[in-house]
Amino acid sequence: MWIAYDGTNYAGWQRQKNCATIQSRMEESLKSILGAEVKLICSGRTDSGVHAFRQTANFHTVSGIKCPNLVKAMNRVLPGDIRVMDALEVDHNFSARYSVKRKLYRYRIYTAPVRSPFLDQYTLFHPRAFDLMRARKALRYLSGQHDFTSFCSIKDENRTRVRTILKIRIYRSGDEILIDFLGNGFLYNMIRIIVGTLLMINSNSLDPGKMKDILLARDRSQAGQTAPAHGLVLVDVRY
Amino acid sequence: MWIAYDGTNYAGWQRQKNCATIQSRMEESLKSILGAEVKLICSGRTDSGVHAFRQTANFHTVSGIKCPNLVKAMNRVLPGDIRVMDALEVDHNFSARYSVKRKLYRYRIYTAPVRSPFLDQYTLFHPRAFDLMRARKALRYLSGQHDFTSFCSIKDENRTRVRTILKIRIYRSGDEILIDFLGNGFLYNMIRIIVGTLLMINSNSLDPGKMKDILLARDRSQAGQTAPAHGLVLVDVRY
Repeated sequence: MWIAYDGTNYAGWQRQKNCATIQSRMEESLKSILGAEVKLICSGRTDSGVHAFRQTANFHTVSGIKCPNLVKAMNRVLPGDIRVMDALEVDHNFSARYSVKRKLYRYRIYTAPVRSPFLDQYTLFHPRAFDLMRARKALRYLSGQHDFTSFCSIKDENRTRVRTILKIRIYRSGDEILIDFLGNGFLYNMIRIIVGTLLMINSNSLDPGKMKDILLARDRSQAGQTAPAHGLVLVDVRY
Repeated sequence: MWIAYDGTNYAGWQRQKNCATIQSRMEESLKSILGAEVKLICSGRTDSGVHAFRQTANFHTVSGIKCPNLVKAMNRVLPGDIRVMDALEVDHNFSARYSVKRKLYRYRIYTAPVRSPFLDQYTLFHPRAFDLMRARKALRYLSGQHDFTSFCSIKDENRTRVRTILKIRIYRSGDEILIDFLGNGFLYNMIRIIVGTLLMINSNSLDPGKMKDILLARDRSQAGQTAPAHGLVLVDVRY
């Protein structure tokens, strides 16, 4: 299934006790339609407050329900801030998590002098001058395969902190600065810490080469703060 | 003042008893800052649920507060879905209502097969084929000066139903059909009834010339339903 959600009112993707999460809403809806418990496997959990234009998740079922009917039924029972956009039957070996080839995340920064009533939940409000050329230089150090320990939450439980960023693009669109991250996988809070570090470099007019120093230090404490979740959106997942 | 608002949680611009309205929130905020009652004059009230990217309103005051300070103070006390974007001092004779030269409204129609969690409050969900060429032909009959009685709520209290539409533009943007209306003033519900009529013509594959017949009939009952408020946004007001 392809799923879009506004993460504002959820404690992230992953099922938790006593918290509204996307996964629990999705699984409850599936149960009410299929009449049986299902466990969803998603491309990768998103944090509390993070949005998705196209998240993916799969499940196994013996039900004979057709995909278009599943989509309609899900959208009848789901709350309006979670939508199943499409569904298709896949091979039994497919895993929404392990079969991922590429993920595209976008971080949105709103630079107008006054907050927008329409974008406040979806962008980081940051009403300052933003030097795109310097930002591009700083981000260039992060493309490719690196040990991203400096840009990884200390709570991350992955065996290795080596990841490959295929492409980072930063560009202006109206009053927004958009930063697109294409990779085959990201560590816990990795994009938000990279953005926080970029904002630190920008605000203090540090040399763009500072980004390289921080990367090579492999030390979370060298990097900037974790940028807020609500500016982040999972744009696409490719298999 | 230039004001942006998400109209979702308000019963429109105009002050009403026992209802949250934009005008009452604005006037309460002004009172708390200036220490005196003020009456706001806006470019034209918007209906319940209608949004604004740039509404304008003026008031008279003996306070010596500087405009940038007023903007900051207002945005500290106003709820997040109403923002004062800018303010400037104007001539004593200026009226945000009577000095208007042009107003630009936009109606947004979302045509993707599944509702968007992000656009549902700002677009009319209408998951059908939309023939832009036919729509353009139909809308062309409405440009210029006409008696718009057919496209006017029977509750409208204006002396004359003659108005001039300077330009109507309909175009696709991603999954949206956008319709821009530029005019020197619009009657009560006029844009929403025009859009409703356009949807009726589109859905029933009526001849685009039907729009002309309805216009000439000067009879509200000939036109289509009033399209929902939440698809409408006041984009700009020019003086």
